[in-house]
Amino acid sequence: MPPFTYPSIVRLHLTDAAGILFFANYFVLAHEAYEAFVTSRGFSFRQILDSEPFMVPIVHAEGDYQAPLRVSDVITITVRLEKLGDTSYTLGYTIADSTGKSVAELKTVHVLVSKSAFEKIPLTPGMRTALESLK
Amino acid sequence: MPPFTYPSIVRLHLTDAAGILFFANYFVLAHEAYEAFVTSRGFSFRQILDSEPFMVPIVHAEGDYQAPLRVSDVITITVRLEKLGDTSYTLGYTIADSTGKSVAELKTVHVLVSKSAFEKIPLTPGMRTALESLK
Amino acid sequence: MPPFTYPSIVRLHLTDAAGILFFANYFVLAHEAYEAFVTSRGFSFRQILDSEPFMVPIVHAEGDYQAPLRVSDVITITVRLEKLGDTSYTLGYTIADSTGKSVAELKTVHVLVSKSAFEKIPLTPGMRTALESLK
Amino acid sequence: MPPFTYPSIVRLHLTDAAGILFFANYFVLAHEAYEAFVTSRGFSFRQILDSEPFMVPIVHAEGDYQAPLRVSDVITITVRLEKLGDTSYTLGYTIADSTGKSVAELKTVHVLVSKSAFEKIPLTPGMRTALESLK
Repeated sequence: MPPFTYPSIVRLHLTDAAGILFFANYFVLAHEAYEAFVTSRGFSFRQILDSEPFMVPIVHAEGDYQAPLRVSDVITITVRLEKLGDTSYTLGYTIADSTGKSVAELKTVHVLVSKSAFEKIPLTPGMRTALESLK
Repeated sequence: MPPFTYPSIVRLHLTDAAGILFFANYFVLAHEAYEAFVTSRGFSFRQILDSEPFMVPIVHAEGDYQAPLRVSDVITITVRLEKLGDTSYTLGYTIADSTGKSVAELKTVHVLVSKSAFEKIPLTPGMRTALESLK
Repeated sequence: MPPFTYPSIVRLHLTDAAGILFFANYFVLAHEAYEAFVTSRGFSFRQILDSEPFMVPIVHAEGDYQAPLRVSDVITITVRLEKLGDTSYTLGYTIADSTGKSVAELKTVHVLVSKSAFEKIPLTPGMRTALESLK
Repeated sequence: MPPFTYPSIVRLHLTDAAGILFFANYFVLAHEAYEAFVTSRGFSFRQILDSEPFMVPIVHAEGDYQAPLRVSDVITITVRLEKLGDTSYTLGYTIADSTGKSVAELKTVHVLVSKSAFEKIPLTPGMRTALESLK
């Protein structure tokens, strides 16, 4: 299965007075791609937040920035599965500019926890299938 | 009673590549002052969201921008009560630069609604007292 | 000419702990539609910021919120020209939910100013043509 | 020398519909503390952006989230110098809740580059002194 790709654009409010994408906003863009992936697999953040007994907080995030991005830059974000555990998964993201060159590599680690006690619980079969489609 | 004043600073991520505070972020700063006011009167957003049967969404917002703000600018936000209704209130905000000159005037209209039906309900006596302290 | 329409989705980071779209982020979404319009007419924020002697700050913004939006909500933003002056223009935005019902009406007033002195200057013919295409 | 500490509060717009601080906004808070540190040492982002031949982009960021933060939570951010190189430095941040318990550990790597060519250049003596005051 191919990784999930998501096209986007660097919007003005994500840049800062240095004229470039603010470092924390690379994570905002990565999460935007993640939300698009989740939706593409038939899941919904809304439904999880409203109706499921669990939530999936991010417990680790990291990013390497190789080149600056500027307002109006057209980008493509690729989402990959880096690791699939019993109660957690790690996603990798490459943000590429319009020439296809990678400008940033990011990673997020997600853990399934109960809403009641914030305790780790196993990933559902549906989640595993969706995530394995990214391998 | 004097209006509530709140000192702040223009942080980098609130600016954009035009080198100035992004227009929507004046509202972010005004709300920051509003949260400080609410806290100063012994209320808590956390407690309202967790435990009260109502919420207080903003139904109208407006801003006039008279001069640009830049990163690191020291500002003072003044919060005033502009109107107190049965189920709603209007707050006015002046954002002044370090010389005391107004650089933006903003307004937000808040309505008390039930969490269950999103229907208007009267302001509580405690809220009225807190708001009247701003007159 | 029809107004410009822009499809989007309510992303998680634009919502807040009240479970709804944070009021200032309606402006973020409106500006996202505005940037898409500008790009669709062959202009570029990047090019204006880098190479033009002018910038186009927003001097007024207002919004009326009729119904809450939640994470994952599919929305359509319509951009209209409300007023075209010599040195300024006013845009109107309707944010509609997936049923087509308006949930927010917003407005932004933009003024063309020189980068050097922040003084008003006339809209360029190219800008006028682009804006009149929205009428 | 003691590390730099910065008190803050979790503002509503930094939280999301899951009811907790959005993961990318821990970096926003860390950078807020960093800006306060820079200012406390007599430097200014504004002055660097306007007048210096260099800028200091972040080339790596990472965060570990140990416990969720909620709106109105009072926090303290501690900024430490983790590494001082010729052209770069690494800062570490601990975000602690009101009981002093660490809820997140973050790290940012900053590189001094020329504005003209985005090429690495040595840290200035003034920067080294400021950073060494954090050790």
